[in-house]
Amino acid sequence: MSLKVLDLAKRRKSVRKFSEKNIPIEKVLKALETATHAPSGANQQPWRFIVITEKDVKIRIKNACERGEREFYEKVDGEFKQWLTEQKLSWKKPFLEKAPVLVAVFMKKDAQYARESVWIAIGFILLALEEQGLSTLTYTPSKIQYPQLLLNVSNNFQLEAIIPIGKSEDNKPKAPKMTLEESTYLNQWGKLITK
Amino acid sequence: MSLKVLDLAKRRKSVRKFSEKNIPIEKVLKALETATHAPSGANQQPWRFIVITEKDVKIRIKNACERGEREFYEKVDGEFKQWLTEQKLSWKKPFLEKAPVLVAVFMKKDAQYARESVWIAIGFILLALEEQGLSTLTYTPSKIQYPQLLLNVSNNFQLEAIIPIGKSEDNKPKAPKMTLEESTYLNQWGKLITK
Repeated sequence: MSLKVLDLAKRRKSVRKFSEKNIPIEKVLKALETATHAPSGANQQPWRFIVITEKDVKIRIKNACERGEREFYEKVDGEFKQWLTEQKLSWKKPFLEKAPVLVAVFMKKDAQYARESVWIAIGFILLALEEQGLSTLTYTPSKIQYPQLLLNVSNNFQLEAIIPIGKSEDNKPKAPKMTLEESTYLNQWGKLITK
Repeated sequence: MSLKVLDLAKRRKSVRKFSEKNIPIEKVLKALETATHAPSGANQQPWRFIVITEKDVKIRIKNACERGEREFYEKVDGEFKQWLTEQKLSWKKPFLEKAPVLVAVFMKKDAQYARESVWIAIGFILLALEEQGLSTLTYTPSKIQYPQLLLNVSNNFQLEAIIPIGKSEDNKPKAPKMTLEESTYLNQWGKLITK
């Protein structure tokens, strides 16, 4: 039996190069509506979203994030630095300007299981956008204080992710994934499952 | 346009009462396969799953979790205690025994953005099970050390959630959710979006 959610998850890949072409805002709102139905600790729904469509706001966010990334990249070393180099990643985050829409996701800091709940909701968003033919990245700024300040966010909330959304122009293939047999055990840790 | 992922998210509710009837394990594996396609920090895929089908393992997990819950419930007070009472929640977690399948979800502790990644994957699992007509709860034990010890988990991994899976026998309605207009702003914090 074909499973829509499995097909979408398989098809989805993280995208860092976006077409600058506009996308219908309604598609983004549908995805955020999907997120509002996610479960959350004590049903506190500890998420808020800012949909960012204005070019100058996007540029200011990009600058604020890149400021933190430059500081971060100067310090990083070891295995992670190697991975970043291999992936051709740098402090530059052009997708924050190029993607036609950004969604900034905030977490209510004092809610129970706030982070867990917010990231379930982000999972819902990614699949709802994929279903509508829109690509995404879950970008987590290395230093949230700069974009947080810029967006004049309530003190009770904290920036968790910025999701650029648009049509992909990224030819990089999807990152390879472990198989189910590598990640899943049966009844006890280490006992392999065989399909 | 109808959106499958939105429909599934709307339809899904957290369920605490399950039929004891067996379910096809293949459906659970399909959902976990969906999870393996989730994005993760540096593609580290910091999740592992134990699919628990054996009755005696479920009972021992229930006992281990309830031990922690009893300790937790003795200490809780204030607004959260009131919410728990209103929701008729207690330290008893019968669904850990009654649900035909449990999935224990573990997080690689030293991976980057490990928690964020694991909970995106959990979001994928919830929707993939809902699509297959199976109900779920994202249960987070109050004290993970008891079930963690019981399952003989590698020191590099930490229990994040136990997801009971089965056919719902829970008549409680879905918890009410904020509207999109209550959770979403446009271009700046506090500026309401109007559909």
